[in-house]
Amino acid sequence: MLDFTHDPARQSWVDSAQAPGTDFPLQNLPFGRFRRAGSGQALRMGVAIGDQILDLAAARVAGGWTEAEAAWLQPLARGDLNAFMAQGPVARRGLRHALSRALEAGSPAQARLAACLLPQDQAEMAVPCHIGDYTDFYTGIHHATTVGKLFRPDNPLLPNYKWVPIGYHGRCSSIGVSGQQLRRPIGQFKAPDAAVPSYGPCQRLDWELEMGVFVGQGNALGEPLGMDRAEEDWFGLCLLNDWSARDVQAWEYQPLGPFLSKSFGSTLSPWIVTQEALAPFRRPFTRPEGDPQPLPYLDSAANRAHGALDITLSVALQTAAMREQGLPPQVLMHSNAGDAYWTVAQLLAHHSSNGCNLQPGDLLGSGTLSGPTPAQGGSLLELTLGGKQPLTLANGEQRCFLQDGDTVVLRGRCEAPGAVAIGLGPCLGTVLPARHAESA
Amino acid sequence: MLDFTHDPARQSWVDSAQAPGTDFPLQNLPFGRFRRAGSGQALRMGVAIGDQILDLAAARVAGGWTEAEAAWLQPLARGDLNAFMAQGPVARRGLRHALSRALEAGSPAQARLAACLLPQDQAEMAVPCHIGDYTDFYTGIHHATTVGKLFRPDNPLLPNYKWVPIGYHGRCSSIGVSGQQLRRPIGQFKAPDAAVPSYGPCQRLDWELEMGVFVGQGNALGEPLGMDRAEEDWFGLCLLNDWSARDVQAWEYQPLGPFLSKSFGSTLSPWIVTQEALAPFRRPFTRPEGDPQPLPYLDSAANRAHGALDITLSVALQTAAMREQGLPPQVLMHSNAGDAYWTVAQLLAHHSSNGCNLQPGDLLGSGTLSGPTPAQGGSLLELTLGGKQPLTLANGEQRCFLQDGDTVVLRGRCEAPGAVAIGLGPCLGTVLPARHAESA
Repeated sequence: MLDFTHDPARQSWVDSAQAPGTDFPLQNLPFGRFRRAGSGQALRMGVAIGDQILDLAAARVAGGWTEAEAAWLQPLARGDLNAFMAQGPVARRGLRHALSRALEAGSPAQARLAACLLPQDQAEMAVPCHIGDYTDFYTGIHHATTVGKLFRPDNPLLPNYKWVPIGYHGRCSSIGVSGQQLRRPIGQFKAPDAAVPSYGPCQRLDWELEMGVFVGQGNALGEPLGMDRAEEDWFGLCLLNDWSARDVQAWEYQPLGPFLSKSFGSTLSPWIVTQEALAPFRRPFTRPEGDPQPLPYLDSAANRAHGALDITLSVALQTAAMREQGLPPQVLMHSNAGDAYWTVAQLLAHHSSNGCNLQPGDLLGSGTLSGPTPAQGGSLLELTLGGKQPLTLANGEQRCFLQDGDTVVLRGRCEAPGAVAIGLGPCLGTVLPARHAESA
Repeated sequence: MLDFTHDPARQSWVDSAQAPGTDFPLQNLPFGRFRRAGSGQALRMGVAIGDQILDLAAARVAGGWTEAEAAWLQPLARGDLNAFMAQGPVARRGLRHALSRALEAGSPAQARLAACLLPQDQAEMAVPCHIGDYTDFYTGIHHATTVGKLFRPDNPLLPNYKWVPIGYHGRCSSIGVSGQQLRRPIGQFKAPDAAVPSYGPCQRLDWELEMGVFVGQGNALGEPLGMDRAEEDWFGLCLLNDWSARDVQAWEYQPLGPFLSKSFGSTLSPWIVTQEALAPFRRPFTRPEGDPQPLPYLDSAANRAHGALDITLSVALQTAAMREQGLPPQVLMHSNAGDAYWTVAQLLAHHSSNGCNLQPGDLLGSGTLSGPTPAQGGSLLELTLGGKQPLTLANGEQRCFLQDGDTVVLRGRCEAPGAVAIGLGPCLGTVLPARHAESA
């Protein structure tokens, strides 16, 4: 699966692509949707390179592409990532090869493409594609176990967990992009000792550290993908903050699952890192000894050989006071995407196994990706033991749940011997006070 | 709320609009998306009148409209119902008035509009608008009680039921229109006495009788609708068959709710009957004595006065054998939408109460609308006591759950003293055998 685009010796004529710690070297080339900040222009598709964005509409006009490359660029040039996703893995790989060559140091394309760059700090980003359906899974077994323990100390994992990739449908309309500012939701909740429920601003507002997977071509209704097509089909990944109102969730979720506790907003990082860029960071997928092996429809040799993804994830918090004090966000936890109990291919294969049609640009959340130790909780619910043990921050502030003005920053980074490290780009979101008129 | 469009003395120059038992008299005027069957044309918007469809693109070109009417028709003329929904209740009422006048017997518009009709039996219908998000509620308290009893005989209704309009996100991509043929889904399930789950064709395939509500203008993220705007905002209704794989559902639904047990297909009736057409069939909304009153954010004087809808619902079944024997579908049950525990306005108000943005064309399912007696179950699960007591059909066949070749027909009909009866148009769906390659 590795090819010349992963060669660590190759550098870009965009100098910042070689900056230490950059998320976007020549080996990454993720897709995002943007416009020049404040321009009010129509949204355009671009590829991140160092601290710049290559504008794909301008790049297509600049010429020098083969006929096939120009055809792949066509939907991107009109700002339509979904139509490019629908072209499938051949287009995804073909365009990656072309862009990697065009952006390589010494490429004759530099002369025509240098004018097609926009500095990322002059861009405003948008959700990268149309999301027709959003499904959130529950692949973080450490999260499921810790949260389960809060409710059922003797039986934290339900009997289906190791057999079924548990998931549920999420809300598309309120998905936003990094920088999203979310009003604290108002809702209905009931204290355990209260006789009747109350209605008011959420008191237990939380983040959840997830990854978001975008579907490529998908499948027709009634025609499951199967593991082999699923493995080829997923387009790429981003970070996903699945903001959660824990008090609302506890009261509403029986028997049909979370609803308003989640649908007030979900935040994505703006860049989709393709499965090709992630190829050097694939790992064997194994189950702990004694656990059941996946049923045949969720199993394949390729999945066992390299189904897992080695991505280091982290969450940092910057409170309003920290911003005033000039303090940077404080990292609260680290985990790794490789700890997920199900692989990306298994999610697509399971989702389509009943005939449900996946469509280009559909979003699949991983579920909260906590690590195995208590300090690696992927949410405040876990890190504070259900709000009972506050975190103390470096500036002395304490948090059980999020306060107004808090900014949450998710990050993801891939490193491997012999490979150039890549990152997912940050995912930021800030909590605004509840809407006053409704909080009465 | 009643106006001249409801006057029972008014008739249409389309004769079939006066046919006894028609769902589509002049007083109805529902919206649907269609094309001439087999034409491969782009989809168009139309309004049902008797056994005909008024083609709104053709009608706009035919002229004779005021400036405002022509503006309202503009998005409809290009097949875009969502954009018309976004114009809000003034447009919805204004166009209703104009169409009611134009289609009335004696109207001078007859000369130009007669050529804009297509017989319904020459049309193929489509899902009427783009559905950005689909939410399924659980307003049928008799359904919730009966199903709850199957699991918890002593405590059928969970403590939140009478406080929270319970709902969950559903799958948009697999929503189809009347006539949909659904492959029996394949899935994972576990018999109570089995050690491990199996994977294969669903053995407990069911229908659910629901209504689908379409959102009108909706609300911006972070800005709840509130009850008054919610009451004005909902655009109209159709029938919805929420096909359900009960064996898959039982195994997968803990703790995040139904997922693949529902997402293989959902079928809508093709015509959206507007809230204006339903005005004569509104009833006071009351709670049984001793039940809690809705919290203030789910309460309004208008909702108490006329929040409920008097719509008689029914489900009929035609098996493959019945089709061969020339037997019509056999009615299995009747219920009434007025038995729902929450009103349409309450669903919109609750859904947006956390700031979640509803968008034009979003679909809200009512949940299964069973009646109060055992014979009024809105699903086979209820009518057969969880599959333990088969139904015997008139031709001697028995059913616990659906067999391949079964066609399910939902119907809805509104009658009231002094009003012309209207109907929702039928919602048909047929079960195809499971996909062979996957059933191994």
